[in-house]
Amino acid sequence: MEFNKIIEEKSAKAWDIYIPNLSVDCVVFGFHDVTLKVLVTRLKDKDLWALPGGYVLKTENLMEAANRILYSRTGAENIYLQEFKVFSELNRSGGVFDEFPDTLWNKQRFLSVGFYALVDFHQVNLVMDDISDACEWKSIEELPNFMMDHRSIFDKALITLRKQLNHKPIGYNLLPEKFTMPELQKLYEIILAKKLNRGNFYRKMLRYDILIKLDESRKGGAHKAPDLYQFDIEKYEKALKEGLNNGW
Amino acid sequence: MEFNKIIEEKSAKAWDIYIPNLSVDCVVFGFHDVTLKVLVTRLKDKDLWALPGGYVLKTENLMEAANRILYSRTGAENIYLQEFKVFSELNRSGGVFDEFPDTLWNKQRFLSVGFYALVDFHQVNLVMDDISDACEWKSIEELPNFMMDHRSIFDKALITLRKQLNHKPIGYNLLPEKFTMPELQKLYEIILAKKLNRGNFYRKMLRYDILIKLDESRKGGAHKAPDLYQFDIEKYEKALKEGLNNGW
Repeated sequence: MEFNKIIEEKSAKAWDIYIPNLSVDCVVFGFHDVTLKVLVTRLKDKDLWALPGGYVLKTENLMEAANRILYSRTGAENIYLQEFKVFSELNRSGGVFDEFPDTLWNKQRFLSVGFYALVDFHQVNLVMDDISDACEWKSIEELPNFMMDHRSIFDKALITLRKQLNHKPIGYNLLPEKFTMPELQKLYEIILAKKLNRGNFYRKMLRYDILIKLDESRKGGAHKAPDLYQFDIEKYEKALKEGLNNGW
Repeated sequence: MEFNKIIEEKSAKAWDIYIPNLSVDCVVFGFHDVTLKVLVTRLKDKDLWALPGGYVLKTENLMEAANRILYSRTGAENIYLQEFKVFSELNRSGGVFDEFPDTLWNKQRFLSVGFYALVDFHQVNLVMDDISDACEWKSIEELPNFMMDHRSIFDKALITLRKQLNHKPIGYNLLPEKFTMPELQKLYEIILAKKLNRGNFYRKMLRYDILIKLDESRKGGAHKAPDLYQFDIEKYEKALKEGLNNGW
C-alpha cells in the first residue's frame, strides 16, 4: 500500500487508542567497528529519515511506551532507556503532513518525549514497519537527512550522553563482556569526539571503582598483552542509580 | 465561590485552550534562614497541598507554560527552570476528582512534566489563585500532606538537584550576592543533608573556577573575619550550560 493510504488508515485507529498530542522518539546508540552509530528509519517513498518513534497508548506509562516502540523495531528487551527532554516547539512537524486533511492524527501538534538508549549492536535485529522502507545503523559522523526536528532531538541526545559520562557509568551495553582499558578509553573518546590522556583516564576510571581486573590478558599483537577487565555489575548498577564515585 | 463550582467552570474553558492530558508541575526551591524550602499551595476547603502547576496552552511550548505558571504564583521572572522528568503513571490522580462527572477536564489522565526551579526567596511575592486558600514556603524537613503523586514529584526533584551538585553550579539564585565559603558550604550541606569536609569543599569549589574572591571580609563575630566571594557570572553561566570543570 502506498504511504498516504497507510497514514490515513492508521490515523483513524490512532485517535481511539493513543493519548493525543503526545509522542515518543528514541535515539538508539550502538557501538560497532570502533564507531558510534544511531538507529534510523526511512519514510517509504521519501528521502526523509526518522528516529524510531511512536505514540503512548491510553493504557501504558511512558517507559512502557518507549520499550514497546523500541522492541517493535529492534527485537531487543531490557534496554537501558533514559528520558532526556520533551520537545515541545509549536512547529515541530515542519509541514510534513501539509497535504493531508486537518483531522489527520499525524497532522496534530505533538509534544515528543525524547529517550536515548544504549544497545548491544549484536543483540539487535532491525525490523521494518509499514511506513518505512529502510531501518539502518548510521555512523554519527554521516547522519542522513532527518525529517521534522529529529536532527535536534539527536543532537540533544548526544550532548546529554556526553554530559552523563561525567556522572554515570557507560559501556556495559556497548562493549563486549571482557575489554581492555584502551578499548574502554576509545569508547569514551569516540563519544566525546576528543582524545583523552591515557594516564588520567586510567586513574579516574579506577577511582570510580566499577571495574574488575581479570587474570587474563588480550593475546595477539606485537605489544605487551593488555590486561582484560569486566564491569562489576553490582557496582555499575549502583553507580547508574546513584551517580559515580566523584560526588560531594 | 466554592471549590467544586469553580473546578467545573474552569473545566469547560480548559478543553478549548489547553493541550489535553498534559500538565506541568513545578518544584520551587528557595533558601532562607539556613533552611531549604519548597513552595506549596493548599486546595480550598481541603487539607491537601499541591505543587504549583497548570496546563499547557495550545499556543505555547513547555518552557513558556512553566514560566507562565510560576510567574502567576510568584511574580518572579527569569527563573532558572529545569525540566527533570515526565510523570506518567496511569493512576496519578489518586481519585481526587472521583465525585465529578467523567467529562471533567481535571478527571482525565494527565502526564505531568516536572520542572524544578531555584529562586531568590526575597524576590518572590506569593500569589493565591481561585482554587487555593494558602500559598506558602515549607521547610523540606516538614512537608505537608500532598495530593496525588506530588510527594514523589518533590522527592524526584530533590534527588535530581542533589545529583546536579556534582556537575552543575548552584547557589546564584539562593545566596546573597556576596557570601563566605562557610555559607556556600552550608548550602551544599543542607541540600545534600550531610556534613562535608571543609578542606575538600574549599579545594573542589576553587577548582571549579566559578568564584571571584573579593577584597572584603565579613565583619562582626569573634573569629577571624572570613573572606567574601561572589560568583563569576560569565563562568557560572558557562558551567551551567557545559558542566563543571571536572569532566573528561
